[in-house]
Amino acid sequence: MADEVAVLGFNLSMFDIRVRIALTEKGVKYEYKEEDLVNTKSALLLQMNPIHKKVPVLIHNGKPICESLIIVEYIDEVWKEKAPLLPTDPYQRAQARFWAKFVDDKVHEVAKRIWTGKVGEHEADKKELIENLKHLEDFLGDKSYFGGDKFGFVDIALIPFYKWFSSYEKVGNFKLDCPKIILWGERCLKNVESVSKFLSHEKDVYEFVQMYRKMTGMD
Amino acid sequence: MADEVAVLGFNLSMFDIRVRIALTEKGVKYEYKEEDLVNTKSALLLQMNPIHKKVPVLIHNGKPICESLIIVEYIDEVWKEKAPLLPTDPYQRAQARFWAKFVDDKVHEVAKRIWTGKVGEHEADKKELIENLKHLEDFLGDKSYFGGDKFGFVDIALIPFYKWFSSYEKVGNFKLDCPKIILWGERCLKNVESVSKFLSHEKDVYEFVQMYRKMTGMD
Repeated sequence: MADEVAVLGFNLSMFDIRVRIALTEKGVKYEYKEEDLVNTKSALLLQMNPIHKKVPVLIHNGKPICESLIIVEYIDEVWKEKAPLLPTDPYQRAQARFWAKFVDDKVHEVAKRIWTGKVGEHEADKKELIENLKHLEDFLGDKSYFGGDKFGFVDIALIPFYKWFSSYEKVGNFKLDCPKIILWGERCLKNVESVSKFLSHEKDVYEFVQMYRKMTGMD
Repeated sequence: MADEVAVLGFNLSMFDIRVRIALTEKGVKYEYKEEDLVNTKSALLLQMNPIHKKVPVLIHNGKPICESLIIVEYIDEVWKEKAPLLPTDPYQRAQARFWAKFVDDKVHEVAKRIWTGKVGEHEADKKELIENLKHLEDFLGDKSYFGGDKFGFVDIALIPFYKWFSSYEKVGNFKLDCPKIILWGERCLKNVESVSKFLSHEKDVYEFVQMYRKMTGMD
């Protein structure tokens, strides 16, 4: 029996994009079901992710897997022959998991406070975001991708945020200073087809951010 | 060459206890270096975890691994013969990772707001904590441990918090309602030697909580 694979997603979600990139790198065909998060969540989403009620959800032969980084690890373990995403060495695996978690905790969470928050109230967050991107640049070093020569787990974790950087800058009225990350982002876009296919456009992200800020009374 | 293993920890840290339980389950000998977090962090800690500057850190043959759940996965991958902690099936592995992350995000984070916060200001958090423990009870079901018959990854993630429950209740002046988790906690204490060895005493936890609350001006 062929695998039945579906993704419950939201087109602009950085977490959803991770999953679609991972599946595409593995050459796995899937059905994409976009959720209308602004209005109402589907019965399928509530059934498949009853705990968090959030996208993305990967549904593999009827079974749901939730939380984007956990989904990407699952994809790597199930379809292990093609395009390995995590290294095989335990220490390097731990490092990859550490930096992917760092993206969630220290890039996404800090940036979210800026783009969802009140203008002028997030000076410390801006400073922290710049510092955290510097830590990522230090880990990247002179490598092409975070894991070395090949696009992998940490790249998948970070790349969807790349097209949000300009929105962070516009809302926060500040400049990110991360030339190495910019070069890496452009390298991913140029060399990795799934990245250029699924990455959001800056304009769409900024429109969404503006809409969200109006909806929440921030602008 | 024999493995050189050390843990930088803090005796009452739930995250540190996860690491010591995992190493002990695997029969790995290690040197324990307790940090004096209240006064000053050691040069070794700052060198080994320059990003977060937090315990626990596992140092294996000179290389640092940080973040407790990532450390436990690392331990499981390096010393894989004895006492497997994660299941081998990818779906069950994803489930184990999901619930371990749930413990961090939805038990620890919510409980921390209660025990570090102002008395009387955390009604929604108390309700949420009770609900989240119910979700864990649903996942536990009639199994002895979260993964089935054997003590494993999710058990290691949650068990160090068990001895904090009474402190949450005292500070928040409410009752947790989780009879299945209590039975499970007692089962772990009775059947798993490393748990009874490393779990904190409720009295010590409460003294620490009181000291912390005085230090931060909450009491």
